[in-house]
Amino acid sequence: MRLSQMLFVTLREDPAEAEIPSHKLLLRAGYIRRIASGIYAYLPFMWRVLQKVSQIVREEMNATGAQECLLPQMQPAELWQESGRWETYTKAEGIMFALTDRQQREVALGPTHEEVITAIARDMIRSYRQLPLHLYQMQTKFRDEIRPRFGLMRGREFIMKDGYSFHVDEASLKETYADMDVAYRNMFRRCGLRFLPVEADSGAIGGSGSQEFMVLADAGEDEVLFTEDGNYSANVEKAVSLPPDAEPSSYTKYEKLDTPNTPTIDSLVKFLDCSPTQILKNVLYQAVLDNGLTVLVLISIRGDQDVNDVKLTNELTKLASDFGATTVLALAVPDAEAQAKWAAKPLPLGYINAGIEDAYIAKVDKVHPKFLRIVDQTAVDLQNFVTGSNESGYHVVGANWDVQYPKPKLVMDVRTAKVGDRSLHDPNQTLQSARGIEVGHIFQLGSKYSQKLGATYTNEQGEEVPLVMGCYGVGVSRLAQSAVEQNHDANGIVWPVAIAPYHAIVVVPNIKDENQMAAAEKLYTELNAAGVETLLDDRDERAGVKFKDSELVGIPFRVVTGRSLKDGKIEVVKRATKDSQDIALGDVVSTLKQWVDEAIEQ
Amino acid sequence: MRLSQMLFVTLREDPAEAEIPSHKLLLRAGYIRRIASGIYAYLPFMWRVLQKVSQIVREEMNATGAQECLLPQMQPAELWQESGRWETYTKAEGIMFALTDRQQREVALGPTHEEVITAIARDMIRSYRQLPLHLYQMQTKFRDEIRPRFGLMRGREFIMKDGYSFHVDEASLKETYADMDVAYRNMFRRCGLRFLPVEADSGAIGGSGSQEFMVLADAGEDEVLFTEDGNYSANVEKAVSLPPDAEPSSYTKYEKLDTPNTPTIDSLVKFLDCSPTQILKNVLYQAVLDNGLTVLVLISIRGDQDVNDVKLTNELTKLASDFGATTVLALAVPDAEAQAKWAAKPLPLGYINAGIEDAYIAKVDKVHPKFLRIVDQTAVDLQNFVTGSNESGYHVVGANWDVQYPKPKLVMDVRTAKVGDRSLHDPNQTLQSARGIEVGHIFQLGSKYSQKLGATYTNEQGEEVPLVMGCYGVGVSRLAQSAVEQNHDANGIVWPVAIAPYHAIVVVPNIKDENQMAAAEKLYTELNAAGVETLLDDRDERAGVKFKDSELVGIPFRVVTGRSLKDGKIEVVKRATKDSQDIALGDVVSTLKQWVDEAIEQ
Repeated sequence: MRLSQMLFVTLREDPAEAEIPSHKLLLRAGYIRRIASGIYAYLPFMWRVLQKVSQIVREEMNATGAQECLLPQMQPAELWQESGRWETYTKAEGIMFALTDRQQREVALGPTHEEVITAIARDMIRSYRQLPLHLYQMQTKFRDEIRPRFGLMRGREFIMKDGYSFHVDEASLKETYADMDVAYRNMFRRCGLRFLPVEADSGAIGGSGSQEFMVLADAGEDEVLFTEDGNYSANVEKAVSLPPDAEPSSYTKYEKLDTPNTPTIDSLVKFLDCSPTQILKNVLYQAVLDNGLTVLVLISIRGDQDVNDVKLTNELTKLASDFGATTVLALAVPDAEAQAKWAAKPLPLGYINAGIEDAYIAKVDKVHPKFLRIVDQTAVDLQNFVTGSNESGYHVVGANWDVQYPKPKLVMDVRTAKVGDRSLHDPNQTLQSARGIEVGHIFQLGSKYSQKLGATYTNEQGEEVPLVMGCYGVGVSRLAQSAVEQNHDANGIVWPVAIAPYHAIVVVPNIKDENQMAAAEKLYTELNAAGVETLLDDRDERAGVKFKDSELVGIPFRVVTGRSLKDGKIEVVKRATKDSQDIALGDVVSTLKQWVDEAIEQ
Repeated sequence: MRLSQMLFVTLREDPAEAEIPSHKLLLRAGYIRRIASGIYAYLPFMWRVLQKVSQIVREEMNATGAQECLLPQMQPAELWQESGRWETYTKAEGIMFALTDRQQREVALGPTHEEVITAIARDMIRSYRQLPLHLYQMQTKFRDEIRPRFGLMRGREFIMKDGYSFHVDEASLKETYADMDVAYRNMFRRCGLRFLPVEADSGAIGGSGSQEFMVLADAGEDEVLFTEDGNYSANVEKAVSLPPDAEPSSYTKYEKLDTPNTPTIDSLVKFLDCSPTQILKNVLYQAVLDNGLTVLVLISIRGDQDVNDVKLTNELTKLASDFGATTVLALAVPDAEAQAKWAAKPLPLGYINAGIEDAYIAKVDKVHPKFLRIVDQTAVDLQNFVTGSNESGYHVVGANWDVQYPKPKLVMDVRTAKVGDRSLHDPNQTLQSARGIEVGHIFQLGSKYSQKLGATYTNEQGEEVPLVMGCYGVGVSRLAQSAVEQNHDANGIVWPVAIAPYHAIVVVPNIKDENQMAAAEKLYTELNAAGVETLLDDRDERAGVKFKDSELVGIPFRVVTGRSLKDGKIEVVKRATKDSQDIALGDVVSTLKQWVDEAIEQ
């Protein structure tokens, strides 16, 4: 392609709307254009990148025997009501666009396709002889994000590969899950990315286990914890670890102390000059369930530890049926406004202890009248601990479970693992931390959806049993931007060769110089004919502008028909290393062909 | 692919939901699955067909220098308000899905992308030196059809290629438009379709000229009129022709006759024993404009002719500004309920004449107080004609324009051309009729959108002027189904080789026969290696079932490792002709490779 014939517009200044480098660079280099909040047009360069990523994903998926299809973006509400996710997705997490059509039927724009594919499986799969089966698609998906940000990273429209596999049993599922693990590693490696597979929380998708693939980059929204030896890595939402040992309590006698202005652990530690590991912290949450019930949850945890909201939500979801509900719609530390709805009297905030009376909860419709009391593992064995007194400005010391307060029956791991913690699998290893961009997520779903939608098959024994399912996602458009986030420098984008929009760019410093133009035209034609995807910068611009643009856009190899031409040589510059060399005119095509072939893994 | 490992499910019975052959066959053969009204999943076979069609479209588009991109499906209301189409698309034609997002902003799902692309052009095109430019995309689009039908023919989700070109002037636009005409002919020919390019109405897209490409098939929703010599063809919505000559009137004297029970032309012709060409028919329409105004329109047309609603709507749209409006939201012959809203007294329906008084229109808010009187060309020169008397049960004969009734100043062509009419370009030719499925439509838009959205460029003279635009659409998913509608027989689909999901299928009559299986496996591997996309029917089914399925699914070449195998031969059957021949085992791959290569035009 000739730049003179393309919609080629670069910006010198960083656009105000962009915060992170990759977003700025994609806008500046003319890859994307914002059409509305979280909604972008993919211009021709970007579309080429996306097609290359898609093709790598497709090849790796096909190699596992998965088959490509395309499912509808618009989905009927009935399917989501069958799975029980309509309320959660349209109201709770609120990420699904929904609307009423002209036939007065509710429909939604799919952020994911478990319901649709399970309905198809219910319809078409009858026998174990049809299994296993794996269908996938690549498609624009929708999420009604409240705060879309970072360009394609968290948009309201984005391209995903999502696959769904069906099995006779867990063993068959685990085989495909393992195949997907390999296929995903292949995809991301072939795209030229540095990435880390991590244990992950399964969130609203559900199922018994899942793994994320993180592209490592400082601007990543996720925190990843991992051990040096590579044997353990997990999203912080999911990570487990050994907390530091608690210091023995310095208090032996139970007594109440006047501790003015100590509502936080920090202030209390300073005031008492004690270790936070001696303190029993009590954190109050408010959970709203899908039957409308509000439940007040009191978590007792060791003072140096923090509650992990994701782990807590998962535990509460398991308990939801105790309250006649099926899931948690919202979880938060209640603010003053929220407290006003149910508190019978002012709460001793910052000084609450595990024995706080249920009488603090007023008799209000749709509010559970008792605290749901949970103790985190870290706080189970505390002795002679420091804790609140249920009276503002006072704490107690030397307290003990089942002496001052009954120990909650619900013992759980709801703590946040931290960098520096010892690893659970090998206490000699400590957890390191990195930032990551989630570009893939694979799930063992089990029969969650097939049971809800009645998708069964007849097994070898002639029994009708629910299908066992897995699902596997790749964020195609997010992956493309994450490649930029991971690969850029002060001058612009540094595309991995395999997903660059073009491999090479022939720059003509002076288009009025007939020799330069003739050599450039010849190289441009021959390089393309040799399979080196090549641009020709034949614009009537200064050489400096052309060089800057080629670096901003990030084309891996720059070919300049400049000064050395009179000696029969061509300057060739590698974008990544800035390494420049003069190559004999006759060797340019073969050299570049070799560089491209070496850089692209099939 | 092995059928045993695919989601391969065929149905013996026609599904109740399907009306036309192609819809039935795509459902029965497992290509598509209905998920909701007008919404289908494309299963793996269908997806392969769609990818092949897309690739042909892509190659032909790229060959013209157009560049592929991807525009958002979700579009902000503001852009459609700027172009003035928000009301028309969300209310009048009512084909656009619209919703309010969580940021309380109105957005819509694009049925077309003139607004988005023009906004991008406004943003990025500054100078004539950037022109011409042509961007296209292939994408799922949405229409909130009231009555989705015929499967993918008129769905609520469908795949389109839409391209938009930008030019300095009409001459440059016409060049690209001509290139597109060629590219489109190439696409449809390469897809193996019999098609006809026809003059078309430009509808809600607008512009100065447009052409549709019709796949000819009995189930087509469109009627096409054309001359034998191929020099003229048009959609009936747009077609022009010479009407038959009128017979001279047999009445010389103006008088009123008692003509009981003659409210229709047929009944009047019978009663008076006159020619319908002697009658002046007056048809009352009601137009609702986008400023809310209702205008009553009286069309006077020759008795043997019919009003063409599309032509009339276009003419009324041009007149809308006379009424302070910009477009027509709805046009209909008013029923009793509609008449009740504005009629001051009962209308002499069936007996109305061109002189009917405006006093029939009551003084009602938002109703224009006078009839808009229009005479069709066919009725301009009538003399001594028969027409209504404005009194039920009575007609007048021997009437004349400007004697009994003033001839309307608005003279227009609003008649429907008919099969058998003489052609306007060559009166020796008469119009033939055929049914067609619209699979492509190309438009000369001019500056309609660039003016509305302020998309200008600086020309060579340094003046800022609006961009001149064209747009070009292909219904990719509709095209795929139209291929089936045009190519099927009693046993199933007969895919054109170029867009068949696979070229060949190796059928093993008896999978327990080791020789059959071994030969089949070898052919399957070698055919695929040779580039003949081949299926292997290795299912444990009877041979008859396999043959039936291969015909239903429509794979062009069937290879059977059956009876002749013992003689070193293989039966090969062509799906289209049912022509069967035994080929030496060693020649099968080269023969099929040759057949496929011959059938597929690059």
